Amino acid sequence: MRQVAILGIGQTKIDEHWEKSLREIGGDAAFAAMQDAGLEKVDSLFVGNMLAPIINGQNQLGTFFADWIGLWKHEAVKVEAACASGAAAFRAGLMAVASNEVDSALIIGVEKMTDKAGHDVTAALATAADADYEVEQGVSFVGINALMMRRYMHEFGWKHEDFAPFSINAHVNAMSNPYARLHEKITVEKFERSSVIATPINLLDASPTGDGAAAVVIVPAEKMVRKPRILVAASAAATDTIALHSRKDPLFLQAAYESSKRAYQIAGVTPDEIDVFELHDAFSIMAALSLEASGFAERGQGVRLGLDNEISPQGRVPVCTRGGLKARGHPVGATGIYQIVEVVQQLRGECGKTQVQDAKIGMAQNIGGSGATILTHILKA
Amino acid sequence: MRQVAILGIGQTKIDEHWEKSLREIGGDAAFAAMQDAGLEKVDSLFVGNMLAPIINGQNQLGTFFADWIGLWKHEAVKVEAACASGAAAFRAGLMAVASNEVDSALIIGVEKMTDKAGHDVTAALATAADADYEVEQGVSFVGINALMMRRYMHEFGWKHEDFAPFSINAHVNAMSNPYARLHEKITVEKFERSSVIATPINLLDASPTGDGAAAVVIVPAEKMVRKPRILVAASAAATDTIALHSRKDPLFLQAAYESSKRAYQIAGVTPDEIDVFELHDAFSIMAALSLEASGFAERGQGVRLGLDNEISPQGRVPVCTRGGLKARGHPVGATGIYQIVEVVQQLRGECGKTQVQDAKIGMAQNIGGSGATILTHILKA
Repeated sequence: MRQVAILGIGQTKIDEHWEKSLREIGGDAAFAAMQDAGLEKVDSLFVGNMLAPIINGQNQLGTFFADWIGLWKHEAVKVEAACASGAAAFRAGLMAVASNEVDSALIIGVEKMTDKAGHDVTAALATAADADYEVEQGVSFVGINALMMRRYMHEFGWKHEDFAPFSINAHVNAMSNPYARLHEKITVEKFERSSVIATPINLLDASPTGDGAAAVVIVPAEKMVRKPRILVAASAAATDTIALHSRKDPLFLQAAYESSKRAYQIAGVTPDEIDVFELHDAFSIMAALSLEASGFAERGQGVRLGLDNEISPQGRVPVCTRGGLKARGHPVGATGIYQIVEVVQQLRGECGKTQVQDAKIGMAQNIGGSGATILTHILKA
Repeated sequence: MRQVAILGIGQTKIDEHWEKSLREIGGDAAFAAMQDAGLEKVDSLFVGNMLAPIINGQNQLGTFFADWIGLWKHEAVKVEAACASGAAAFRAGLMAVASNEVDSALIIGVEKMTDKAGHDVTAALATAADADYEVEQGVSFVGINALMMRRYMHEFGWKHEDFAPFSINAHVNAMSNPYARLHEKITVEKFERSSVIATPINLLDASPTGDGAAAVVIVPAEKMVRKPRILVAASAAATDTIALHSRKDPLFLQAAYESSKRAYQIAGVTPDEIDVFELHDAFSIMAALSLEASGFAERGQGVRLGLDNEISPQGRVPVCTRGGLKARGHPVGATGIYQIVEVVQQLRGECGKTQVQDAKIGMAQNIGGSGATILTHILKA
C-alpha cells in the first residue's frame, strides 16, 4: 500500500442553508478543497452521505456530484455507514489511491437535512439503528443514547452535570471557527437548565444537525510538495453489533477499541503521542465512551478528563478543538470529513485561538449508529 | 495492485420473499458464498444496496449484515450507485484486497423491494434520476428509458418488434436458471401484445424487480488453489451526466464506452475475445445501447445482433445467459453481483443448457441511472 497525503481541504459553514441545494453545498466544499489543493481535476470522487435518499429524494450521489463539479467520465461513488459515512468514504478513497487504481481522489462529506420537518429527520436518523429490533419498538436514536447515558451514570456514579465540561469546551472552541453552527458560550448552569430531550439527555448534551459539506483531496505522498506534508499515517475500520441490546457490554465501544488499537499499531504511536483528537461527541456520553475505548481514560473515567480540564487545546488530550459535533455541528454524513479537515487545520497550524501548540499527530474518530461502525484515522505532519 | 480471484459465489432466487426479511435474504446469499468458498470467516464486508433506507427503513447495511452473519469487529461498509450499487461494492472490495489492506472480502448485493406498494417503489427508483431537474418534472425512471427508446427508433428506423429478440433470449435462458424470477417462454406475438407501461416500453421490454441477494468471496490470486481459478482481469468505473437531457448524445452510453474501453485495455483483450457478456438489460433499449457502446455493434445497430440470432449462448455475442435483468430479475442494488456470479458460473462451466462452450473470458456491465454510472468487469478462467 503506497503512502497517501492530504493535499487540500474545504468546508462550508454548517447552518440552515435555505438558499442552497444539496448539490450547491457539496459543490462549494469540493471547489474549496480543489482550490486549496491547487488542482483543476482529480481522478476520482467518493461521497459520504447518509440521508439524501430519504430527505432529498436523491441517490447516486457520486455521479450526481461528479456531474455538478465537472468530473465527467471519472469514477465516482457514494459510501454510507450512517453517521460514519464521511470517514468510510475517506477510507474508500484512500484505498483507491493506495492501491494505485487512481492517482488522486476527492472525498466529499455532505448532508442537507433541513429540507424536511424535524419529525421526518428524527425518523430518518433512526435508520442508523436496527429497524426490526430497535426502531420497531419505538425508540429514537437519541433514546438509544439516553439509555447508554443513564446506565453510565448509574454504573460509575456520575451526575448529569459531570458531563458539562464536554459541551462547554466544544462551545468555547467553536467561537473562533467561522464554519461552526453555534457561536455561543455556555456555563454549567445553562447546561443544567437546558430542555430535556430524552432523559437524561438534554439539549446541551446533544449535537445540532444541519446542512453542511466538507471535502479533502488526497494524492500519493510522493506527489505532494506542499509543506507541511500531511500524511495519512493510519486508517482502520471496525464494527460492533448494530443493536445496542446485542452487546455484551453496552458501555464499551468495542469498535472504537478495535479501530483505534489497529490505528495506533499501523501508525506506530501510543495514545499519549496524539496531540489532538477530533472525537464523535454526537451526545456527551459518546465523548466519554470514545475517550475510554481509545485508551485515553480508564473505564468509567472518561468524564474525569473534562472535569480535570484536560480536554482544552492547552490540555493533555485536546478534543473538539473546532467545536466538535456539539458546537461545530453534526450534518451526519458529512461529519467524518469535517473531523479530518479540522485535524489537517491543526497540523498546518491554522487554528488561531484554539491551536494546539506544535501539533504533529492528530486523530479523528467517526461513529455510525450507537457505536456500530467506527473508523479511526491518524494523520501526521 | 495485486491480482484478485473470486473464490466463492452464492445467490437466492429472485422472488417476492414475503416470508423473509432483508437481513435473511442477504444472509442466505452470504452464507452460500462462504460455503462455496470453503471459508468460515472473511476479513471484510462490502454491501451493494440502493433502496433499503427508503423501503426498509434501514441504513448502515455493512454493519447490519456483518452483525447478522457473525463478522463482529470486522470492517464493513455499504456502497451505493443506484442500480450499479452491486458492481460498485464489488469494486470497493476489490480495491481493499488489491491494496493489501485486507486479505479477503465478502461482497453482498441485496435488495428487498416488495415491502412497499408499487407506487412507493416507483418513487424510490426515481431517486436514481436527477431529483431537481428530472423527477421534479414528474418523469418516472421508466419514462426516461421510454424517451431513449422512442428516440432510438426514430433515429435509426427500427420498429418496436425489432427489440423482441432481447427479451425472448433472456426468457428462454432463464428457463434453466433456478434462481430466476420468471420461468416463461415468450414469442414475438406475445411481446407485441403485452401491456404498455410508458410508450413505447411495454411490460416485456421491462425487467421485473423483486427481492434477491447475491454474494461473492474474493481473495488474493495466490491464495486461491481451487480450479478453475477465476481472476478479476479488469475493473473499470466511469460516469456520465446524471440527467439525460444534459448529454450531448442521449443515445450513446458514454460511461459504458469509457469503462469498457478501459477494461479491455487493462485485461488486454478485444470485444471479440469476450465469450460471454452479462449486460444490463433493465429495459430492452439498454441492451442495444450497451452492446453499441461496448464495441459489439455499430451505432444504431445493437438490435441487429438480436435479429441475427447472435446473442444466444451459441451465438457470437452471448448475453443474458442466465436470464439477464429481464427474466432472471432486477433486485436493483443486487443486480451487479448477480451478473458477476453468473459470469463465474459460465467460466466454471456450470450453466447446463445455457453453457457457452469453452467460455474463458466473461464480462459483466452494471448500469446506474439512465447510463450515469457504469462499471465494467472482465473475469478470466
